[in-house]
Amino acid sequence: MTQTSTQTIGFIGLGQMGQGMAARLIESGHSLIVYNRSQDKCRALAEAGARVAQRPLETVSRGGIVVSMLADDAAVEAVFDDALLAQIGDGGIHLSMSTLGPATASRLAARHRAHGVAYVACPVFGRPDAARAGKLWLCLAGPTSARARLQPLLDAMGQGVHAFGEDPAAANVTKLAGNFLIASAIEAMGEAYSLAEKHGVDASAVHQLLTQTLFACPIYQNYGKAIVEQRFTPPGFTLRLGAKDMRLVQDAARAAEMPMPLASLLGDRFLRMLATGQGNIDWTGLAADQRQAAGLAGTSGHTA
Amino acid sequence: MTQTSTQTIGFIGLGQMGQGMAARLIESGHSLIVYNRSQDKCRALAEAGARVAQRPLETVSRGGIVVSMLADDAAVEAVFDDALLAQIGDGGIHLSMSTLGPATASRLAARHRAHGVAYVACPVFGRPDAARAGKLWLCLAGPTSARARLQPLLDAMGQGVHAFGEDPAAANVTKLAGNFLIASAIEAMGEAYSLAEKHGVDASAVHQLLTQTLFACPIYQNYGKAIVEQRFTPPGFTLRLGAKDMRLVQDAARAAEMPMPLASLLGDRFLRMLATGQGNIDWTGLAADQRQAAGLAGTSGHTA
Repeated sequence: MTQTSTQTIGFIGLGQMGQGMAARLIESGHSLIVYNRSQDKCRALAEAGARVAQRPLETVSRGGIVVSMLADDAAVEAVFDDALLAQIGDGGIHLSMSTLGPATASRLAARHRAHGVAYVACPVFGRPDAARAGKLWLCLAGPTSARARLQPLLDAMGQGVHAFGEDPAAANVTKLAGNFLIASAIEAMGEAYSLAEKHGVDASAVHQLLTQTLFACPIYQNYGKAIVEQRFTPPGFTLRLGAKDMRLVQDAARAAEMPMPLASLLGDRFLRMLATGQGNIDWTGLAADQRQAAGLAGTSGHTA
Repeated sequence: MTQTSTQTIGFIGLGQMGQGMAARLIESGHSLIVYNRSQDKCRALAEAGARVAQRPLETVSRGGIVVSMLADDAAVEAVFDDALLAQIGDGGIHLSMSTLGPATASRLAARHRAHGVAYVACPVFGRPDAARAGKLWLCLAGPTSARARLQPLLDAMGQGVHAFGEDPAAANVTKLAGNFLIASAIEAMGEAYSLAEKHGVDASAVHQLLTQTLFACPIYQNYGKAIVEQRFTPPGFTLRLGAKDMRLVQDAARAAEMPMPLASLLGDRFLRMLATGQGNIDWTGLAADQRQAAGLAGTSGHTA
């Protein structure tokens, strides 16, 4: 019916999110050639029918589509070098779904353009289970001309697309703004619930009241539950990745020459967690640092 | 049917919230004697059928019920002096709906007990329009024995009651935790949306995405809209009142000997707004201070 449903799609980067998204694409009838630096992450997808590439260059043929979901800015810039961009070539599309800084997105977009490749930024909101179920929220920006060919992929991976125009950086700024709001909500609940606990008030009762009324939305309900129960493993999104995103938020604020005092506070909170070796728990575990500071640490918890 | 529907209820404190709550009680069939320091606030209620008292002592007869919705801790402690408590007397109930500090609540509860009066804390969540419509969220704690007589009043004023046990202070801690979460959300949106704006991204599009997905709840939707549109008047809840609540949060944290870094940040933000004469706009106007700091002030706005 469409080009994308008959042609093979390249998929680079098979972390927790990438694996779920790639599996979902296969399930929706797309042919995939997948690549990941550590090959063992390819196994499940190979069993589901994906071909496995030995190098990024093998994931895409001239004018094709390649999707990436890599860990950070450096990984995307390293993988999408001139050789790969030349391979994708004129008329090709790179659907870049990682959370990147806006400056990186602009730099990548220019380099892609020089090779005739459309760079489409599409960072996502949602945890690995949402990725696997095709229930991500997609935050899209890039050349409109590329949109139609991408639609079947977007439909398979997301429950909704929000478009932010032609400039890819806009989608990345929006994604960073969203992750900043989430980290801020974790911080606020961490402080509020430890205040309740220190005053002898049942934090889970406070959580119930607030998330059934003013804050009846997924972030407060789900993340707040993890905070109250102190269940920070297994991680849906690691504290280390959250720290990276907060660095991107702070970099974006500095680039725009504006202060973000709450981002600064959160940046320090993340660094304390990394400094004390807690980078691999879920980022809701920021609340553990607050409990520790409040003298509540060690009374319960599942952060080990 | 119940005692409260046949006996007259005292109501002290007719600010924006108190007027709405009292009007709603009258509409629900309750007889009220109202008192407010400035008498002009009593006029609309008198027209609706309330009797107007010249002194707090006239609002309640022995063993009766008096409701209060006053501006701050000092006002409640001043009005509910030994003379008034003696007047209420054994078997009487004070339904105290103001946002107070937990230490004040405990002190008041003890003084009430000495006069045989049940002190029931019931701070509320909701803006004046919700008060007028009987759609408040009620946060209740105090002697269980008083609960049955209060139920018809609670039913008239609220769309739901969350109970926090026998100790009134617990309800006040919970209310402060909630207001702290709201102020934190305002701060987070203020920073996030100014980041978007400085990067040339339409803040209202970012707001749409986030409040239709992860943050699909009233606080983010309604307060975020005010922030994006910079509509901070007329105030639903003034910045000055928010500053008072943040002081109560910080006092409660100090009393419990625990840091709340985000509360400290917010406390300073509130003080900057008061210092620059902006105490009478809505507390979503905290975001105006962030825009100013980001060099975005004066480009639009309705804070005058």
